[in-house]
Amino acid sequence: MPSIFTKIINGDIPCYKIAEDADNFAFLDINPNAKGHTLCVPKKEVDKIMDLDEEAYMKLMSFSRRIGKAIEAAVACKRVGMSVIGLEVPHVHVHLIPLHSMKDATFQHKENLNSEEFETIAEKIRNYLK
Amino acid sequence: MPSIFTKIINGDIPCYKIAEDADNFAFLDINPNAKGHTLCVPKKEVDKIMDLDEEAYMKLMSFSRRIGKAIEAAVACKRVGMSVIGLEVPHVHVHLIPLHSMKDATFQHKENLNSEEFETIAEKIRNYLK
Repeated sequence: MPSIFTKIINGDIPCYKIAEDADNFAFLDINPNAKGHTLCVPKKEVDKIMDLDEEAYMKLMSFSRRIGKAIEAAVACKRVGMSVIGLEVPHVHVHLIPLHSMKDATFQHKENLNSEEFETIAEKIRNYLK
Repeated sequence: MPSIFTKIINGDIPCYKIAEDADNFAFLDINPNAKGHTLCVPKKEVDKIMDLDEEAYMKLMSFSRRIGKAIEAAVACKRVGMSVIGLEVPHVHVHLIPLHSMKDATFQHKENLNSEEFETIAEKIRNYLK
């Protein structure tokens, strides 16, 4: 049974895509802590970050840096934070979150965006990756 | 004015040290989300994670993986999570947090440990790095 992220990567579930390379895929979190909150996911399904082999882990971290720098350029915020938790979806994912205050890092407060707002912010981030 | 983490790295403020290499330093968070919560800090003082140059960033992430795997072996938990926030201390630090439930990832609940408990858990993690 593929994870929900594998279904997104395969195009079976729609997403606001940010970028992909041979090994990793980035898209907007649909239940964001803050506008621009993005998930970076390795295409190979592994549950826990510490179980990724070193090469896959380093590629994911390098990919996340590239995406994070684009988010920081595209979204007004104090900085972009990173978070790996993974208690809900058993497929490694790096949260990249534009931080305005500590509340954006707690996963206790969520931002409501409509599809136009998601598409606008996704395009803005993608433009910084060109 | 050196950051509090630089003072810890230089030995001007005591800590429960986990490990260091040429570029990075790891020690227990004194106000932990959960027992075994560790900070990995680059010796060079940079404020934001996305401003680290690629080499320093990749070295920090590689170092954090090594420490994270030792924590996961040493501390009973569901998995070790990672978090980079940095709104309080302007010196990059990766939180490595043994996660039991989502509450351990929110930074809203803290664990009280005495110095003997800190020393015991630090030694246990260090033993897995040998």
